[in-house]
Amino acid sequence: MTGKIICVGLGPGDPDLISVRADRLIRGARDVAFFRKAGRQGQARRIVEGMLAPGTAEHAMEYPVTTELPFDSPAYIAQLSAFYDDWTARLRAMAEAGREVIVLCEGDPFFYGSFMHLYVRLRDLVPVEVVPGIPGMVGCWNAVGQPITWGDDVLTVLMGTLPEADLIRHMRGAEALVIMKTGRNLPRVRRALATAGRLDQAWLVERGTMPGQRMVPLAEVGDDDCPYFAIVLVHGHGRRPVAEAAE
Amino acid sequence: MTGKIICVGLGPGDPDLISVRADRLIRGARDVAFFRKAGRQGQARRIVEGMLAPGTAEHAMEYPVTTELPFDSPAYIAQLSAFYDDWTARLRAMAEAGREVIVLCEGDPFFYGSFMHLYVRLRDLVPVEVVPGIPGMVGCWNAVGQPITWGDDVLTVLMGTLPEADLIRHMRGAEALVIMKTGRNLPRVRRALATAGRLDQAWLVERGTMPGQRMVPLAEVGDDDCPYFAIVLVHGHGRRPVAEAAE
Repeated sequence: MTGKIICVGLGPGDPDLISVRADRLIRGARDVAFFRKAGRQGQARRIVEGMLAPGTAEHAMEYPVTTELPFDSPAYIAQLSAFYDDWTARLRAMAEAGREVIVLCEGDPFFYGSFMHLYVRLRDLVPVEVVPGIPGMVGCWNAVGQPITWGDDVLTVLMGTLPEADLIRHMRGAEALVIMKTGRNLPRVRRALATAGRLDQAWLVERGTMPGQRMVPLAEVGDDDCPYFAIVLVHGHGRRPVAEAAE
Repeated sequence: MTGKIICVGLGPGDPDLISVRADRLIRGARDVAFFRKAGRQGQARRIVEGMLAPGTAEHAMEYPVTTELPFDSPAYIAQLSAFYDDWTARLRAMAEAGREVIVLCEGDPFFYGSFMHLYVRLRDLVPVEVVPGIPGMVGCWNAVGQPITWGDDVLTVLMGTLPEADLIRHMRGAEALVIMKTGRNLPRVRRALATAGRLDQAWLVERGTMPGQRMVPLAEVGDDDCPYFAIVLVHGHGRRPVAEAAE
Protein backbone atom coordinates (compact mmCIF):
# COMPACT_ATOMS: atom_id res chain seq x y z
CA MET A 1 0.00 0.00 0.00
CA THR A 2 1.45 3.34 -1.03
CA GLY A 3 2.04 6.03 1.56
CA LYS A 4 1.85 9.73 1.02
CA ILE A 5 3.69 13.02 1.40
CA ILE A 6 1.65 15.72 3.14
CA CYS A 7 3.09 19.21 3.38
CA VAL A 8 1.42 21.24 6.12
CA GLY A 9 1.58 25.03 6.32
CA LEU A 10 2.46 26.02 9.88
CA GLY A 11 1.32 29.62 9.63
CA PRO A 12 3.21 32.65 10.92
CA GLY A 13 4.84 31.08 13.98
CA ASP A 14 2.37 30.88 16.88
CA PRO A 15 1.45 27.15 17.14
CA ASP A 16 -2.07 28.19 18.12
CA LEU A 17 -2.49 29.59 14.58
CA ILE A 18 -1.89 26.23 12.89
CA SER A 19 -5.04 24.90 11.24
CA VAL A 20 -7.07 22.17 12.93
CA ARG A 21 -6.18 19.77 10.11
CA ALA A 22 -2.45 20.48 10.21
CA ASP A 23 -2.42 20.27 14.02
CA ARG A 24 -4.03 16.82 13.85
CA LEU A 25 -1.56 15.63 11.20
CA ILE A 26 1.47 16.90 13.13
CA ARG A 27 0.39 15.32 16.43
CA GLY A 28 -0.34 12.01 14.71
CA ALA A 29 2.82 11.92 12.56
CA ARG A 30 5.19 8.95 12.54
CA ASP A 31 7.62 10.75 10.19
CA VAL A 32 8.18 14.49 9.94
CA ALA A 33 10.55 16.29 7.57
CA PHE A 34 11.54 19.96 7.59
CA PHE A 35 14.03 22.32 5.94
CA ARG A 36 16.74 24.00 7.95
CA LYS A 37 20.09 25.63 7.64
CA ALA A 38 22.88 23.24 8.71
CA GLY A 39 23.66 23.58 12.39
CA ARG A 40 20.37 25.29 13.27
CA GLN A 41 17.21 23.88 14.83
CA GLY A 42 15.18 25.44 12.04
CA GLN A 43 12.14 27.69 12.38
CA ALA A 44 9.61 25.08 11.17
CA ARG A 45 10.81 22.51 13.69
CA ARG A 46 10.82 25.12 16.45
CA ILE A 47 7.15 25.96 15.85
CA VAL A 48 6.04 22.36 16.50
CA GLU A 49 8.16 21.95 19.64
CA GLY A 50 6.17 19.88 22.14
CA MET A 51 3.64 18.70 19.53
CA LEU A 52 5.39 15.59 18.17
CA ALA A 53 4.46 12.20 19.61
CA PRO A 54 7.23 10.20 21.31
CA GLY A 55 9.10 8.12 18.76
CA THR A 56 8.30 10.33 15.77
CA ALA A 57 11.15 10.05 13.24
CA GLU A 58 12.59 13.44 12.33
CA HIS A 59 14.14 14.10 8.92
CA ALA A 60 16.08 17.37 8.76
CA MET A 61 16.50 18.54 5.16
CA GLU A 62 19.57 20.75 5.45
CA TYR A 63 20.20 23.30 2.71
CA PRO A 64 23.66 22.70 1.20
CA VAL A 65 24.07 26.43 0.68
CA THR A 66 22.08 29.54 1.55
CA THR A 67 23.67 32.93 1.07
CA GLU A 68 27.31 31.94 0.56
CA LEU A 69 26.89 31.90 -3.25
CA PRO A 70 24.97 34.25 -5.59
CA PHE A 71 21.52 32.73 -6.19
CA ASP A 72 21.92 32.81 -9.97
CA SER A 73 25.42 31.29 -10.09
CA PRO A 74 25.77 27.87 -11.77
CA ALA A 75 27.29 26.43 -8.58
CA TYR A 76 24.35 27.54 -6.45
CA ILE A 77 21.80 26.22 -8.92
CA ALA A 78 23.59 22.88 -9.27
CA GLN A 79 23.93 22.34 -5.53
CA LEU A 80 20.35 23.25 -4.79
CA SER A 81 19.01 21.06 -7.62
CA ALA A 82 21.02 18.10 -6.36
CA PHE A 83 19.69 18.72 -2.85
CA TYR A 84 16.06 18.74 -4.02
CA ASP A 85 16.68 15.65 -6.20
CA ASP A 86 18.17 13.81 -3.25
CA TRP A 87 15.24 14.56 -0.95
CA THR A 88 12.78 13.74 -3.70
CA ALA A 89 14.34 10.26 -3.88
CA ARG A 90 14.29 9.82 -0.10
CA LEU A 91 10.69 11.00 0.35
CA ARG A 92 9.60 8.93 -2.63
CA ALA A 93 11.19 5.83 -1.11
CA MET A 94 9.42 6.44 2.20
CA ALA A 95 6.06 6.89 0.50
CA GLU A 96 6.60 3.80 -1.63
CA ALA A 97 7.38 1.86 1.55
CA GLY A 98 3.89 2.80 2.77
CA ARG A 99 4.88 5.62 5.12
CA GLU A 100 3.04 8.90 5.47
CA VAL A 101 5.53 11.73 5.83
CA ILE A 102 4.44 15.12 7.18
CA VAL A 103 6.59 17.93 5.75
CA LEU A 104 6.56 21.04 7.94
CA CYS A 105 6.64 24.41 6.19
CA GLU A 106 6.39 27.90 7.67
CA GLY A 107 3.56 30.09 6.43
CA ASP A 108 1.71 28.75 3.39
CA PRO A 109 3.64 26.15 1.34
CA PHE A 110 2.58 27.55 -2.06
CA PHE A 111 3.51 31.14 -1.19
CA TYR A 112 7.28 31.50 -1.76
CA GLY A 113 7.89 28.18 0.00
CA SER A 114 10.81 25.80 -0.50
CA PHE A 115 8.50 22.79 -0.59
CA MET A 116 7.35 23.64 -4.09
CA HIS A 117 10.71 22.46 -5.43
CA LEU A 118 9.96 19.02 -3.97
CA TYR A 119 6.29 19.25 -4.95
CA VAL A 120 6.95 19.61 -8.67
CA ARG A 121 9.38 16.68 -8.56
CA LEU A 122 7.20 14.36 -6.45
CA ARG A 123 3.66 14.98 -7.64
CA ASP A 124 3.76 12.55 -10.56
CA LEU A 125 5.58 9.85 -8.58
CA VAL A 126 3.68 9.42 -5.30
CA PRO A 127 0.56 10.92 -3.69
CA VAL A 128 1.28 14.46 -2.47
CA GLU A 129 -1.07 16.70 -0.51
CA VAL A 130 -0.65 20.29 0.64
CA VAL A 131 -2.51 21.80 3.60
CA PRO A 132 -2.60 25.61 3.35
CA GLY A 133 -1.45 27.83 6.21
CA ILE A 134 -1.69 31.47 7.24
CA PRO A 135 1.12 33.25 5.34
CA GLY A 136 3.73 34.95 7.51
CA MET A 137 2.74 38.37 6.18
CA VAL A 138 -0.82 37.88 7.51
CA GLY A 139 0.55 37.24 10.99
CA CYS A 140 2.67 40.38 10.67
CA TRP A 141 -0.15 42.71 9.65
CA ASN A 142 -2.29 41.22 12.37
CA ALA A 143 0.48 41.94 14.89
CA VAL A 144 0.49 45.62 13.89
CA GLY A 145 -3.25 45.69 14.67
CA GLN A 146 -4.26 47.65 11.60
CA PRO A 147 -6.16 46.45 8.51
CA ILE A 148 -3.78 46.01 5.58
CA THR A 149 -6.32 46.56 2.78
CA TRP A 150 -9.62 48.43 2.54
CA GLY A 151 -12.14 48.73 -0.25
CA ASP A 152 -10.40 48.75 -3.62
CA ASP A 153 -6.81 49.00 -2.36
CA VAL A 154 -4.23 47.26 -4.54
CA LEU A 155 -1.81 45.08 -2.56
CA THR A 156 1.61 44.23 -3.99
CA VAL A 157 4.04 41.72 -2.48
CA LEU A 158 7.70 42.38 -3.31
CA MET A 159 10.98 40.64 -2.58
CA GLY A 160 13.69 42.87 -1.14
CA THR A 161 16.10 41.21 -3.57
CA LEU A 162 14.62 43.09 -6.55
CA PRO A 163 16.60 45.90 -8.23
CA GLU A 164 15.98 49.31 -6.69
CA ALA A 165 14.29 50.74 -9.80
CA ASP A 166 11.79 47.85 -9.84
CA LEU A 167 11.08 48.31 -6.17
CA ILE A 168 10.38 52.02 -6.65
CA ARG A 169 8.06 51.44 -9.61
CA HIS A 170 5.98 48.87 -7.70
CA MET A 171 5.95 50.94 -4.51
CA ARG A 172 4.50 53.87 -6.45
CA GLY A 173 1.84 51.70 -8.10
CA ALA A 174 0.10 50.04 -5.14
CA GLU A 175 -1.72 51.29 -2.06
CA ALA A 176 -0.68 48.46 0.28
CA LEU A 177 2.79 46.89 0.23
CA VAL A 178 4.46 43.83 1.70
CA ILE A 179 8.21 43.50 1.28
CA MET A 180 9.73 40.13 2.15
CA LYS A 181 13.34 38.90 2.11
CA THR A 182 14.53 42.12 3.65
CA GLY A 183 17.62 41.27 5.77
CA ARG A 184 20.73 42.57 4.04
CA ASN A 185 18.50 44.26 1.43
CA LEU A 186 16.95 46.56 3.99
CA PRO A 187 19.02 49.67 3.11
CA ARG A 188 17.92 49.36 -0.55
CA VAL A 189 14.30 48.74 0.45
CA ARG A 190 14.38 51.82 2.63
CA ARG A 191 15.90 54.02 -0.09
CA ALA A 192 13.27 52.81 -2.55
CA LEU A 193 10.43 53.54 -0.11
CA ALA A 194 11.82 57.03 0.52
CA THR A 195 12.05 57.71 -3.23
CA ALA A 196 8.48 56.44 -3.70
CA GLY A 197 7.27 58.67 -0.86
CA ARG A 198 6.11 55.75 1.30
CA LEU A 199 8.82 55.48 3.97
CA ASP A 200 6.86 57.37 6.63
CA GLN A 201 4.03 54.81 6.45
CA ALA A 202 6.27 51.73 6.59
CA TRP A 203 6.53 49.27 9.49
CA LEU A 204 9.22 46.71 10.11
CA VAL A 205 7.73 43.60 11.75
CA GLU A 206 10.07 40.99 13.14
CA ARG A 207 8.92 37.58 14.40
CA GLY A 208 5.24 38.46 13.98
CA THR A 209 2.95 36.42 16.33
CA MET A 210 6.03 34.81 17.95
CA PRO A 211 7.82 35.39 21.25
CA GLY A 212 10.12 38.37 20.82
CA GLN A 213 7.77 40.00 18.33
CA ARG A 214 8.93 43.51 17.43
CA MET A 215 7.21 46.23 15.45
CA VAL A 216 8.87 49.52 14.70
CA PRO A 217 8.44 52.33 12.15
CA LEU A 218 10.99 51.56 9.43
CA ALA A 219 12.22 55.16 9.40
CA GLU A 220 13.53 54.59 12.94
CA VAL A 221 15.52 51.43 12.14
CA GLY A 222 19.26 51.60 11.56
CA ASP A 223 20.75 50.19 8.35
CA ASP A 224 22.83 47.80 10.40
CA ASP A 225 19.73 46.42 12.13
CA CYS A 226 18.50 43.99 9.48
CA PRO A 227 16.85 40.92 10.98
CA TYR A 228 16.37 38.19 8.39
CA PHE A 229 12.86 37.19 9.45
CA ALA A 230 11.48 40.70 9.18
CA ILE A 231 8.77 41.90 6.83
CA VAL A 232 8.12 45.50 5.80
CA LEU A 233 4.47 46.59 5.60
CA VAL A 234 2.77 49.68 4.21
CA HIS A 235 -0.94 49.73 4.98
CA GLY A 236 -3.61 50.67 2.45
CA HIS A 237 -6.29 53.25 3.21
CA GLY A 238 -8.85 52.63 0.49
CA ARG A 239 -12.47 53.49 0.04
CA ARG A 240 -14.53 53.47 3.21
CA PRO A 241 -17.62 55.12 4.66
CA VAL A 242 -17.27 58.87 5.35
CA ALA A 243 -17.47 58.50 9.12
CA GLU A 244 -14.06 56.85 9.02
CA ALA A 245 -12.52 58.91 6.26
CA ALA A 246 -11.57 61.69 8.66
CA GLU A 247 -9.43 59.48 10.86
CA MET B 1 -15.65 43.12 34.69
CA THR B 2 -15.41 44.19 31.10
CA GLY B 3 -15.94 41.64 28.36
CA LYS B 4 -14.31 41.61 24.99
CA ILE B 5 -14.92 41.48 21.24
CA ILE B 6 -12.86 38.82 19.46
CA CYS B 7 -12.98 38.64 15.68
CA VAL B 8 -11.85 35.27 14.38
CA GLY B 9 -10.75 34.67 10.79
CA LEU B 10 -12.49 31.53 9.52
CA GLY B 11 -10.17 30.91 6.60
CA PRO B 12 -11.23 29.98 3.07
CA GLY B 13 -14.30 27.88 3.91
CA ASP B 14 -13.30 24.38 4.98
CA PRO B 15 -13.88 24.28 8.78
CA ASP B 16 -10.83 22.02 9.09
CA LEU B 17 -8.70 24.99 7.97
CA ILE B 18 -9.75 27.20 10.88
CA SER B 19 -6.88 27.83 13.31
CA VAL B 20 -6.69 25.89 16.57
CA ARG B 21 -7.24 29.13 18.51
CA ALA B 22 -10.27 30.23 16.47
CA ASP B 23 -11.75 26.73 16.64
CA ARG B 24 -11.50 26.75 20.43
CA LEU B 25 -13.06 30.24 20.66
CA ILE B 26 -15.95 29.32 18.35
CA ARG B 27 -16.78 26.08 20.17
CA GLY B 28 -16.65 27.84 23.55
CA ALA B 29 -18.62 30.94 22.50
CA ARG B 30 -21.70 32.15 24.39
CA ASP B 31 -22.32 34.94 21.83
CA VAL B 32 -21.42 34.89 18.15
CA ALA B 33 -21.98 37.69 15.63
CA PHE B 34 -21.58 37.54 11.86
CA PHE B 35 -22.31 39.63 8.77
CA ARG B 36 -24.80 38.49 6.19
CA LYS B 37 -27.04 39.71 3.46
CA ALA B 38 -30.66 39.97 4.64
CA GLY B 39 -32.56 36.77 3.99
CA ARG B 40 -29.46 34.60 3.62
CA GLN B 41 -27.79 32.24 6.07
CA GLY B 42 -24.47 33.94 5.40
CA GLN B 43 -21.20 32.31 4.41
CA ALA B 44 -19.45 32.90 7.76
CA ARG B 45 -22.32 31.29 9.70
CA ARG B 46 -22.43 28.38 7.23
CA ILE B 47 -18.74 27.59 7.81
CA VAL B 48 -19.27 27.06 11.57
CA GLU B 49 -22.40 24.91 11.15
CA GLY B 50 -22.30 22.17 13.77
CA MET B 51 -19.57 23.87 15.81
CA LEU B 52 -21.64 26.13 18.08
CA ALA B 53 -22.54 24.92 21.57
CA PRO B 54 -26.24 24.52 22.39
CA GLY B 55 -27.65 27.81 23.66
CA THR B 56 -25.09 30.05 21.94
CA ALA B 57 -26.73 33.41 21.18
CA GLU B 58 -26.46 34.32 17.48
CA HIS B 59 -26.33 37.94 16.35
CA ALA B 60 -26.82 38.35 12.59
CA MET B 61 -25.46 41.68 11.39
CA GLU B 62 -27.47 42.18 8.19
CA TYR B 63 -26.12 44.63 5.63
CA PRO B 64 -28.76 47.29 4.94
CA VAL B 65 -27.64 47.45 1.30
CA THR B 66 -25.17 45.53 -0.86
CA THR B 67 -25.19 46.09 -4.60
CA GLU B 68 -28.49 47.96 -4.99
CA LEU B 69 -26.74 51.35 -4.76
CA PRO B 70 -23.43 52.55 -6.23
CA PHE B 71 -20.73 52.12 -3.57
CA ASP B 72 -19.69 55.77 -3.77
CA SER B 73 -23.19 57.28 -3.63
CA PRO B 74 -24.02 59.41 -0.56
CA ALA B 75 -27.03 57.17 0.20
CA TYR B 76 -24.88 54.01 0.25
CA ILE B 77 -22.21 55.61 2.41
CA ALA B 78 -24.79 56.99 4.86
CA GLN B 79 -26.65 53.68 5.21
CA LEU B 80 -23.50 51.66 5.69
CA SER B 81 -22.06 54.11 8.22
CA ALA B 82 -25.27 54.02 10.23
CA PHE B 83 -25.19 50.22 10.11
CA TYR B 84 -21.63 50.05 11.45
CA ASP B 85 -22.41 52.69 14.10
CA ASP B 86 -25.43 50.69 15.23
CA TRP B 87 -23.49 47.43 15.59
CA THR B 88 -20.64 49.26 17.28
CA ALA B 89 -23.12 50.40 19.95
CA ARG B 90 -24.61 46.92 20.34
CA LEU B 91 -21.27 45.12 20.58
CA ARG B 92 -19.94 47.78 22.93
CA ALA B 93 -22.93 47.30 25.20
CA MET B 94 -22.42 43.54 25.24
CA ALA B 95 -18.73 43.91 26.09
CA GLU B 96 -19.47 46.47 28.80
CA ALA B 97 -21.98 44.03 30.28
CA GLY B 98 -19.09 41.57 30.66
CA ARG B 99 -19.85 39.37 27.66
CA GLU B 100 -17.25 37.99 25.29
CA VAL B 101 -18.56 38.16 21.72
CA ILE B 102 -16.95 36.10 18.96
CA VAL B 103 -17.32 37.81 15.57
CA LEU B 104 -17.02 35.36 12.68
CA CYS B 105 -15.30 36.61 9.51
CA GLU B 106 -14.42 34.70 6.35
CA GLY B 107 -10.77 34.60 5.36
CA ASP B 108 -8.51 36.95 7.31
CA PRO B 109 -10.32 39.85 9.05
CA PHE B 110 -7.70 42.47 8.15
CA PHE B 111 -7.57 41.53 4.46
CA TYR B 112 -10.50 43.31 2.75
CA GLY B 113 -12.82 42.29 5.60
CA SER B 114 -15.98 44.08 6.75
CA PHE B 115 -14.98 43.74 10.40
CA MET B 116 -12.38 46.49 10.07
CA HIS B 117 -15.22 49.04 9.95
CA LEU B 118 -16.29 47.86 13.41
CA TYR B 119 -12.68 47.48 14.54
CA VAL B 120 -11.76 51.12 14.00
CA ARG B 121 -14.92 52.22 15.83
CA LEU B 122 -14.58 49.81 18.77
CA ARG B 123 -10.87 49.63 19.51
CA ASP B 124 -10.73 52.69 21.74
CA LEU B 125 -13.97 51.82 23.58
CA VAL B 126 -13.68 48.17 24.66
CA PRO B 127 -11.05 45.40 24.38
CA VAL B 128 -10.91 44.06 20.80
CA GLU B 129 -8.83 41.15 19.57
CA VAL B 130 -8.38 39.76 16.07
CA VAL B 131 -7.33 36.18 15.31
CA PRO B 132 -5.86 35.91 11.81
CA GLY B 133 -7.14 33.36 9.30
CA ILE B 134 -6.05 31.86 5.99
CA PRO B 135 -7.18 34.37 3.32
CA GLY B 136 -9.65 33.03 0.76
CA MET B 137 -7.12 33.49 -2.05
CA VAL B 138 -4.71 31.09 -0.29
CA GLY B 139 -7.40 28.41 -0.24
CA CYS B 140 -8.02 29.03 -3.94
CA TRP B 141 -4.40 28.71 -5.05
CA ASN B 142 -4.06 25.64 -2.91
CA ALA B 143 -7.13 24.15 -4.62
CA VAL B 144 -5.50 24.62 -8.04
CA GLY B 145 -2.54 22.60 -6.74
CA GLN B 146 0.14 24.86 -8.16
CA PRO B 147 2.50 27.24 -6.31
CA ILE B 148 1.35 30.85 -6.77
CA THR B 149 4.77 32.50 -6.32
CA TRP B 150 8.36 31.35 -6.84
CA GLY B 151 11.67 33.04 -6.16
CA ASP B 152 11.40 36.77 -6.80
CA ASP B 153 7.91 36.79 -8.34
CA VAL B 154 5.89 39.93 -7.67
CA LEU B 155 2.32 39.21 -6.54
CA THR B 156 -0.40 41.81 -7.00
CA VAL B 157 -3.92 41.57 -5.57
CA LEU B 158 -6.55 43.52 -7.52
CA MET B 159 -10.26 44.18 -7.12
CA GLY B 160 -12.35 43.50 -10.21
CA THR B 161 -14.12 46.79 -9.53
CA LEU B 162 -11.09 48.82 -10.70
CA PRO B 163 -11.21 50.71 -14.03
CA GLU B 164 -10.06 48.62 -16.98
CA ALA B 165 -6.96 50.75 -17.67
CA ASP B 166 -5.80 50.31 -14.05
CA LEU B 167 -6.37 46.56 -14.25
CA ILE B 168 -4.31 46.31 -17.45
CA ARG B 169 -1.43 48.34 -16.02
CA HIS B 170 -1.21 46.18 -12.88
CA MET B 171 -1.63 42.94 -14.84
CA ARG B 172 1.35 43.88 -17.00
CA GLY B 173 3.49 44.76 -13.99
CA ALA B 174 3.33 41.63 -11.84
CA GLU B 175 4.21 37.97 -12.36
CA ALA B 176 1.47 36.52 -10.14
CA LEU B 177 -2.05 37.96 -9.94
CA VAL B 178 -5.08 37.55 -7.72
CA ILE B 179 -8.28 39.29 -8.79
CA MET B 180 -11.09 39.42 -6.23
CA LYS B 181 -14.62 40.87 -6.41
CA THR B 182 -15.10 39.40 -9.88
CA GLY B 183 -18.86 38.64 -10.22
CA ARG B 184 -20.45 41.16 -12.57
CA ASN B 185 -16.97 42.61 -13.29
CA LEU B 186 -15.78 39.37 -14.89
CA PRO B 187 -16.16 40.51 -18.52
CA ARG B 188 -13.97 43.58 -17.82
CA VAL B 189 -11.43 41.49 -15.91
CA ARG B 190 -11.23 39.09 -18.82
CA ARG B 191 -10.79 41.85 -21.40
CA ALA B 192 -8.04 43.39 -19.28
CA LEU B 193 -6.23 40.05 -18.93
CA ALA B 194 -6.45 39.50 -22.70
CA THR B 195 -5.04 42.99 -23.39
CA ALA B 196 -2.23 42.37 -20.89
CA GLY B 197 -1.46 39.02 -22.55
CA ARG B 198 -2.26 36.99 -19.41
CA LEU B 199 -5.66 35.46 -20.18
CA ASP B 200 -4.29 32.07 -21.24
CA GLN B 201 -2.66 31.58 -17.83
CA ALA B 202 -5.71 32.61 -15.78
CA TRP B 203 -7.85 30.32 -13.61
CA LEU B 204 -11.30 31.00 -12.22
CA VAL B 205 -11.68 29.36 -8.80
CA GLU B 206 -15.11 29.20 -7.24
CA ARG B 207 -15.75 28.08 -3.66
CA GLY B 208 -12.11 27.07 -3.12
CA THR B 209 -11.71 24.36 -0.39
CA MET B 210 -15.52 24.12 -0.04
CA PRO B 211 -18.08 21.60 -1.28
CA GLY B 212 -18.89 22.43 -4.89
CA GLN B 213 -15.37 23.72 -5.50
CA ARG B 214 -14.84 24.50 -9.19
CA MET B 215 -11.67 25.39 -11.07
CA VAL B 216 -11.71 26.26 -14.75
CA PRO B 217 -9.42 28.12 -17.17
CA LEU B 218 -10.89 31.63 -17.39
CA ALA B 219 -10.71 31.62 -21.19
CA GLU B 220 -13.33 28.84 -21.16
CA VAL B 221 -15.85 30.67 -18.95
CA GLY B 222 -18.84 32.49 -20.48
CA ASP B 223 -19.41 36.16 -19.69
CA ASP B 224 -22.81 35.27 -18.25
CA ASP B 225 -21.21 32.77 -15.83
CA CYS B 226 -20.02 35.13 -13.09
CA PRO B 227 -20.21 33.54 -9.65
CA TYR B 228 -19.81 36.11 -6.90
CA PHE B 229 -17.49 34.06 -4.70
CA ALA B 230 -14.97 33.39 -7.46
CA ILE B 231 -11.36 34.53 -7.56
CA VAL B 232 -9.18 34.79 -10.66
CA LEU B 233 -5.57 33.58 -10.33
CA VAL B 234 -2.54 33.90 -12.57
CA HIS B 235 0.41 31.90 -11.27
CA GLY B 236 3.96 33.22 -11.15
CA HIS B 237 6.90 31.29 -12.56
CA GLY B 238 9.91 33.01 -10.99
CA ARG B 239 13.50 32.06 -10.48
CA ARG B 240 14.10 28.38 -9.77
CA PRO B 241 16.82 25.78 -10.19
CA VAL B 242 17.54 24.81 -13.80
CA ALA B 243 16.30 21.26 -13.45
CA GLU B 244 12.79 22.67 -13.18
CA ALA B 245 13.14 25.53 -15.62
CA ALA B 246 12.48 23.26 -18.59
CA GLU B 247 9.07 22.14 -17.31
